[in-house]
Amino acid sequence: MSALDNIRVVLCQTTHPGNIGAAARAMKTMGIRHLYLVNPSRFPDAEAVALASGAQDVLDSAVVCANLEQALADCVLAVGLTARSRDLSVPFLTVRDAAPKMIEEAAAHKMAIVFGTEMSGLTNQELGKCQMLARIPSDEEYGSLNLAAAVQVVCYELRIQALAESFVRENQFEFATLAEIEAFYQHLEVTLIQTEFLNPEQPKRLMLRLRRLFSRTRLEKEEVNILRGILSSFDSR
Amino acid sequence: MSALDNIRVVLCQTTHPGNIGAAARAMKTMGIRHLYLVNPSRFPDAEAVALASGAQDVLDSAVVCANLEQALADCVLAVGLTARSRDLSVPFLTVRDAAPKMIEEAAAHKMAIVFGTEMSGLTNQELGKCQMLARIPSDEEYGSLNLAAAVQVVCYELRIQALAESFVRENQFEFATLAEIEAFYQHLEVTLIQTEFLNPEQPKRLMLRLRRLFSRTRLEKEEVNILRGILSSFDSR
Repeated sequence: MSALDNIRVVLCQTTHPGNIGAAARAMKTMGIRHLYLVNPSRFPDAEAVALASGAQDVLDSAVVCANLEQALADCVLAVGLTARSRDLSVPFLTVRDAAPKMIEEAAAHKMAIVFGTEMSGLTNQELGKCQMLARIPSDEEYGSLNLAAAVQVVCYELRIQALAESFVRENQFEFATLAEIEAFYQHLEVTLIQTEFLNPEQPKRLMLRLRRLFSRTRLEKEEVNILRGILSSFDSR
Repeated sequence: MSALDNIRVVLCQTTHPGNIGAAARAMKTMGIRHLYLVNPSRFPDAEAVALASGAQDVLDSAVVCANLEQALADCVLAVGLTARSRDLSVPFLTVRDAAPKMIEEAAAHKMAIVFGTEMSGLTNQELGKCQMLARIPSDEEYGSLNLAAAVQVVCYELRIQALAESFVRENQFEFATLAEIEAFYQHLEVTLIQTEFLNPEQPKRLMLRLRRLFSRTRLEKEEVNILRGILSSFDSR
């Protein structure tokens, strides 16, 4: 799972060393090992070691930086974790929706997930250095996850996505391109007009409904070929 | 989101009161508030309060039980979190795969997620009281999540699933039953044999491939009706 090797967790201005240790443990349980600390209040520290449990090696190899730019220097993507988008003009997704994009990038390049200080999160200046923002959809009235708990959730999402991607790769099923999928919809529509299931004078929302159905599954190339083969077998009757 | 109101977190034989507090906070951030403590080493305790942060109310309403049966008495489903299945003959799923079933149950009934003691997890006796086992797919070499971190991940999965379900319900699309989906596959197979796309003498894996495609999307009643309408329009030519 090389994608996880390209991911680093960047903790900015962390106040409590215990949170650094707990974050290191959270990362390691999910197979993510690169920890960058921007201007931590106390590090190294015995409290961090105590809470790292068996993840002492993650602490030992942690890189301490004076500012966020240093921590991101060799990354192609930085994703900031934040509760609010703060009107910045970058994509703002849930962590689940952001995970596929992050793993796709991490398959080939170094990328960072950036966490702010415990009390107030990322500053606007720090957010400005991120190309994507992600949020954990927490309770509206009490949304304050502990820092290490947030690291755990994000690293968990990345691991699940990385496992799914490597499963897909192992199965060697190639996804259809959008052009191939569009051609299938065109073929489907023509066939349905021929069989008179679809009246082009009164199409209603039939094609939209069918698009909605197929867009929920992610069609593979071979599946599109099978579906079009079925349509051709109808056409040629 | 009433499903989350029907879910309780059961912590068995917790050694460190700080973990109870951190678990309470993790739960509350995900909108889950019912905490049951089976035979905790120390509770109530100042350390639990300190780590609960704004989730003091979850601690205040926590129910302390002498044994696991008490904690599960009014539940219809108990899901045990464990790293290994230990050859028990109950379903053993990842937390992600288990979440839909859990939320489906919790929509109408009380259900429990059961966590074992910090060092060794659930005992076989405790696991025996669970009707389903779930695991967090953690790193093979270092899979040991902190107790509160595991509670965070599980409650996060349940919240995401509950949000997705309530979104679906708001859209008022009703899912097809398995019987309706099977009838669709039968109809599809008969039609494909008629059009000679499927040779019943050499069926290969065509129907399996098509089942795999449609099982990735969760078909709605109306979608099954549309698909069968399309097949009928072919049949009647």
